[in-house]
Amino acid sequence: MTDAAALPALGPDERAARRVAVGELGDALRELVDAAVRTEVPEAELEAVAAAARELAARLRASGRGLHDIARVDDPETGERWYSPVYGPGSPVAPPLVATDSPDGRATGRVTVGKPHEGPPGLVHGGVVATLLDHVLARALRAAGRGGLTATLTVRYRRPVHLGVPLLLTAEMGETVGRRTTAHARLVAEDAPEVVLAEAEGLFVALRAEQAADVFAATGRAVGAWTTRS
Amino acid sequence: MTDAAALPALGPDERAARRVAVGELGDALRELVDAAVRTEVPEAELEAVAAAARELAARLRASGRGLHDIARVDDPETGERWYSPVYGPGSPVAPPLVATDSPDGRATGRVTVGKPHEGPPGLVHGGVVATLLDHVLARALRAAGRGGLTATLTVRYRRPVHLGVPLLLTAEMGETVGRRTTAHARLVAEDAPEVVLAEAEGLFVALRAEQAADVFAATGRAVGAWTTRS
Repeated sequence: MTDAAALPALGPDERAARRVAVGELGDALRELVDAAVRTEVPEAELEAVAAAARELAARLRASGRGLHDIARVDDPETGERWYSPVYGPGSPVAPPLVATDSPDGRATGRVTVGKPHEGPPGLVHGGVVATLLDHVLARALRAAGRGGLTATLTVRYRRPVHLGVPLLLTAEMGETVGRRTTAHARLVAEDAPEVVLAEAEGLFVALRAEQAADVFAATGRAVGAWTTRS
Repeated sequence: MTDAAALPALGPDERAARRVAVGELGDALRELVDAAVRTEVPEAELEAVAAAARELAARLRASGRGLHDIARVDDPETGERWYSPVYGPGSPVAPPLVATDSPDGRATGRVTVGKPHEGPPGLVHGGVVATLLDHVLARALRAAGRGGLTATLTVRYRRPVHLGVPLLLTAEMGETVGRRTTAHARLVAEDAPEVVLAEAEGLFVALRAEQAADVFAATGRAVGAWTTRS
């Protein structure tokens, strides 16, 4: 792989253009992932597709980043991650969640979870539910300048969450004491918003600048989104 | 897509052979996913690979299952899922965890998490940590005949969990009262097992047979792994 440090940084227009292409590849790979977990084609065809997929991987590896490098499409100061496993437009493993937030410490997310994220038959995996809730909790805080790492996450699963149903997540910031901030969130089906399917409480702790420098040292970049702003 | 109900069930040898092919495709797609989230190839190449990936998806869709159908490689009575988003050999979105368990209610898991499951730069996503812990908790109970759906999951994140480090998860069943059973689990780095990186407590509730029939009705199959055995 090419050393990513050798690649020039992108200007705003270049970054916007690259984000479009990254999102398109993300879409295509999410289609492929969905097809793969639902396929019943013969074994010989599975093998042929596997070989073709390995060829595509080799093409993408012609230039790539190391395990700790930050993508050129990303902005580590705002915390927006183009390859996030939850909402990243470029991530083949993201459901993906479509999230919004406001500076008063609120966030919402919309998603319809498919077969790749199944737990018990026909249901969304409990870990995926936790992941979606964790993200809207963290996003609510970050939007209010209170970004931090999850310290405690408690999820209460009230009802089975079915695949293929449009879901709505909402999160709201609670109290802040020093570097510690709480938040709560809930998950409902868009067409039955009065029935809580799952809810979560989170405690997040902002890193001090010197902790962030240590935790993110391997990235070789300034990473501000998980530190205190005030 | 073909209606999966029209496909003949597999005998033991056929199922074993198909599992090998499914695992091979899973491996190849996990390689492709990893390459995609690390690539810095030019936009034109991203677009070309996206088009090729869509062609592969179409090939796999020549015969497939609906959203609620169970794969022919799976056994819904034991709960082993070949496409699990946590440990499934055929899942492109699984890290994947390699898990074992014993009938006294213990489970372990080993995994090295890569770039596709990154949260803050260089670190494993908090939701992915929760997902891994949820799985070993549920597996510990299921191995003891106490399978159930997660009712409450509490995760305490003690230290940042870095990508690319071999991790070890251990879980142990706690108390059972009626259909409710508790369990706890912890996550450490294999090379520093005395330092707890994260820990979790879970409460799981087994479905009554009639609840299971309702929750899993859309699968059109008997699903026993999340119900009481005694």
